[in-house]
Amino acid sequence: MSENKIPYKIYLEENELPTAWYNVRADMKNKPAPLLNPGTHEPMKAEELAPVFCEELIKQELDNDTAYFPIPEEILNFYKMYRPSPLIRAYFLEKKLGTPAKIYYKFEGNNTSGSHKLNSAIAQAYYAKKQGLKGVTTETGAGQWGTALSMACSYFDLDCKVYMVKVSYEQKPFRREVMRTYGASVTPSPSETTNIGRKILADHPGTTGSLGCAISEAVEVATSLEGYRYVLGSVLNQVLLHQSVIGLETKAALDKYGIMPDIIIGCAGGGSNLGGLMSPFMGEKLRGEADYRIIAVEPASCPSFTRGTYAYDFCDTGMVCPLAKMYTLGSGFIPSANHAGGLRYHGMSSILSQLYDDGLMEAVSVPQTAVFEAAEEFARVEGILPAPESSHAIRVAIDEALKCKETGEEKTIVFGLTGTGYFDMVAYEQFHDGTMTDYIPTDEELAESISKLPKF
Amino acid sequence: MSENKIPYKIYLEENELPTAWYNVRADMKNKPAPLLNPGTHEPMKAEELAPVFCEELIKQELDNDTAYFPIPEEILNFYKMYRPSPLIRAYFLEKKLGTPAKIYYKFEGNNTSGSHKLNSAIAQAYYAKKQGLKGVTTETGAGQWGTALSMACSYFDLDCKVYMVKVSYEQKPFRREVMRTYGASVTPSPSETTNIGRKILADHPGTTGSLGCAISEAVEVATSLEGYRYVLGSVLNQVLLHQSVIGLETKAALDKYGIMPDIIIGCAGGGSNLGGLMSPFMGEKLRGEADYRIIAVEPASCPSFTRGTYAYDFCDTGMVCPLAKMYTLGSGFIPSANHAGGLRYHGMSSILSQLYDDGLMEAVSVPQTAVFEAAEEFARVEGILPAPESSHAIRVAIDEALKCKETGEEKTIVFGLTGTGYFDMVAYEQFHDGTMTDYIPTDEELAESISKLPKF
Repeated sequence: MSENKIPYKIYLEENELPTAWYNVRADMKNKPAPLLNPGTHEPMKAEELAPVFCEELIKQELDNDTAYFPIPEEILNFYKMYRPSPLIRAYFLEKKLGTPAKIYYKFEGNNTSGSHKLNSAIAQAYYAKKQGLKGVTTETGAGQWGTALSMACSYFDLDCKVYMVKVSYEQKPFRREVMRTYGASVTPSPSETTNIGRKILADHPGTTGSLGCAISEAVEVATSLEGYRYVLGSVLNQVLLHQSVIGLETKAALDKYGIMPDIIIGCAGGGSNLGGLMSPFMGEKLRGEADYRIIAVEPASCPSFTRGTYAYDFCDTGMVCPLAKMYTLGSGFIPSANHAGGLRYHGMSSILSQLYDDGLMEAVSVPQTAVFEAAEEFARVEGILPAPESSHAIRVAIDEALKCKETGEEKTIVFGLTGTGYFDMVAYEQFHDGTMTDYIPTDEELAESISKLPKF
Repeated sequence: MSENKIPYKIYLEENELPTAWYNVRADMKNKPAPLLNPGTHEPMKAEELAPVFCEELIKQELDNDTAYFPIPEEILNFYKMYRPSPLIRAYFLEKKLGTPAKIYYKFEGNNTSGSHKLNSAIAQAYYAKKQGLKGVTTETGAGQWGTALSMACSYFDLDCKVYMVKVSYEQKPFRREVMRTYGASVTPSPSETTNIGRKILADHPGTTGSLGCAISEAVEVATSLEGYRYVLGSVLNQVLLHQSVIGLETKAALDKYGIMPDIIIGCAGGGSNLGGLMSPFMGEKLRGEADYRIIAVEPASCPSFTRGTYAYDFCDTGMVCPLAKMYTLGSGFIPSANHAGGLRYHGMSSILSQLYDDGLMEAVSVPQTAVFEAAEEFARVEGILPAPESSHAIRVAIDEALKCKETGEEKTIVFGLTGTGYFDMVAYEQFHDGTMTDYIPTDEELAESISKLPKF
C-alpha cells in the first residue's frame, strides 16, 4: 500500500481487535525462572499462592506453555470503552527533528486512569469477581495503578482497598480523589490498619513510606480478610500477558498498512508496558520469523537492567513475597528523592530479565532532565502532555531518530506512549523552574544494596 | 443499517471529516443582533474592531450570510492530531439506568487541553500568524481556554500572554504549569502589568480577581503592544463557527449509520460548545428539513437563559468591550464563590440568545450537587472522568433517559461531553466530603444586577 494511504492515526475496526492475549513465554527457549518459596527455596506451587492471588490469575502466572489465552467476553466489552488505542504517526515530531526516520507511537493514555495499567486492572478485577470474591487490595505509588484498579473494581462492583505511599498520598491529593470517585478506599501507607504498618511506624516514626511497605500492608490485609485477594499492576507474568493487547493491536495496525518496524522502544520500570508492547514482535523474533531491535529505557536513577545483577531477590522490601529471579538493584534500593516519575521498582519482570540476559533485548538508561526536555519537545509538537514514565521512551525514540538524521537511514521506530502527565505537573514545574536535578547512584551505593540479596 | 452494526465508538475516516465550518447565521431568519459601539450605540464596523481582533476573524464575526467557510489546510492538519473525536454510544450508562433511550455522546476531552476549546484556539492562532502578528493575549478562568490557546500558539510559534484570574492561578497551579509547558506566559490578574490592573489593585487591595478584570487586562495589553491582538474562547460568533466542527462530525457519524437523534443536549456558559454541537441540526431545523429538541443546560448559580433578560449589555465587567445583545444577568453579576466549575459568564452567545428567544431551543438550569452526582454515576460506568461543565449536560441526558424509562419511549439522545475533570479534583473532593453546597441567586439579587444594564 502506498504510504500516502496511511492515516495520521491508525484505529483498528472492532473486528480487527485481538480476542486473545499472547503469552510470549510459550515461544521462549529459556523460560523465565520460577518464583521461589522464600523459606524452602522451592518453586511456588499454585496452592501456596492461592491465599494471596486469584485462582485463574495463578494459572496464568505459572503457565509457560499456552501461547494464547482467549480474552473473556466481559473484558472485551470493557476494552471497548477505551480500546483500540490509536497508533499515531509522529509526523509533527519527525518534521521538527528533520529526520528521515518514521516514528509511530501507541498511545495508551486516552482513558481516565491515564495509562496502560487499565488493561490488566480490568482482567484482574474480572477474575476476582468470577471467583466470587468481595474485594481486592493493592498498593500504589504515583497512583496510576490504583486509579486503574479503582475503575475496574467499580465496573464489577468489587471493593477496592488501596494502600498509597504516604508521600504520594499527601503530594497527589487529586489522584486520591479520582480513586475515591470510583469508590475505592485509599489509605496512606504506612498506616495503623495493619501489623506491619504499626511496626514500621513504631520503628521509623515520621516515615513517608515506600512502595515495598505498601505492598506488605496490602498483602497482609488480603490474607487476613475473608473474601479478599491481593493484585499487582506490574512485574508479574500475568500482567505482561494482559498487556500483550498493546502489542497485538500495534502489530495488527502496522500489518494492516504493510509497515515493518525496525526498532521497538518502551519505558521499563517493572516491565508491564514494554513487555506488552514488544510481545508479538519478540514472538516473531523468537520463532526466527523477523528481527527487530527492542530497547528498554530506564531511569538513570533506578537502572536495574543496565547496572543491576541477574539473581533471585525479594519482590518487596518487607521480604514477605516469593523470591523472583530478575535484574535487580536489591530489594532495599530506593531511588533518590529527587526522582520525579514512576519506574522506581528495584527489580524487573522475570520474563524481560530472561530475554535481556539472552541478548534478545537492549537497555539504556537516561537522566531525568533529558527526559523532561524530550517530554516538552514532544508535547509542543504532538499536542499530548506525556507522563514522565512515557517520556523515557520519547527520549530514546528522539535519539534514535536523530541518529537516522546523521546517517540518512529511513528507519521505522515504534514506541509506547504509556500515559498522560496531568498529575505530574509538580515535576514539570521543577523542570521549568530549573530546580530539577539528575541523580545517578554511585557504584558503591549499588554494590551495598546488591550485597544484601538473599543467599542460596 | 441494522443496529448491531453500529460500533461502540464511531470514528469517522479521514475522508469523512468536515473540510468547512458551518455558519448557522446564514440560515437564521432573525439574525443575531450586531455588536454596538459602547459610545455611539452604532453597529461596530470592521475597522473599529481591527485594533483588538485579527482581520480574518473580524470578517467571520460580522458575516451573517456565508453558510460555509473552508477550513484552511494548516488547521485541518492540526485537527488531525486529535480529531475526529469519537461519538460514543453510552451502552454502559443506558444499562445502569435501565432506560430504553439510546444515548450518544461526542467526547471532546481527548486532547491535552482537555476540552473542545482547542477547536477555536488553533483557528484563532492560525489567523493571527497569517496576519504576521507576534502574539496574542487572552484571559482564562478555570484554565481550559488558556491551555488550548497555549498549545495552538506553540504550534504556530506565536507568543501567548495569558491573564489568569488570580484565585484560579493560585488554586490551579497545575493548569498554569501546562500552559508554561507550551511556552505561554501566565500572569495572575489583576496584575501590576496594566493600567487597569493597577487601578483595580488600588481600589480593591487583596482582590482575587474576576474574569471581567482579566479580559480588560488582556485587551489593554493587546492594544498597547505592537503586533499583538486579543482572542477570546467563547461567546463570539467566530468561536461558534469554529466549534461547528463538533456538530458536523457528530452529524456525519450519525448519518453514516442512519441514526436520527430526537434530543441534542449541551452545557452552556458562553455557548461555544452547544453552539458548535447543535449547529448543523439547528440548520436543518431552520430550513424545515428536520426537527429536534435542543436543550441548553446552565448552572442554577448562573442562569442567564432561564432567569436573565434579553438585552444589550457589556461583555466585560470593565465595560471596555462592545455591547452585545444577549440573555444576560448583568455584566456585574458574579456567581457565588461556592460555584465550582466554569459556565460562569454573565451573558450568552448572541446567536444562541436569538435562537432561544425565537423558541428554537430550550434551556434548563441544574444545581451543582445534582451535577456532580451525575458526573460520578457517569464516570463509574462509562470510565471517563467528566469536567464539571460537561456534567451539566450529563445530568439532563440522564434525566431525559429516565423520563423515557417511565414512558417506554426509545428516544435517541445526543449530548456533548466537552472535557475531562483532571484539574477539577478539588470540586470532586468537596462533593465526596459532603462540603459542596448549592447556591441559587435570589430574585432580588438578579433584579439588582440586571437593573444596571446600559440604558438606550
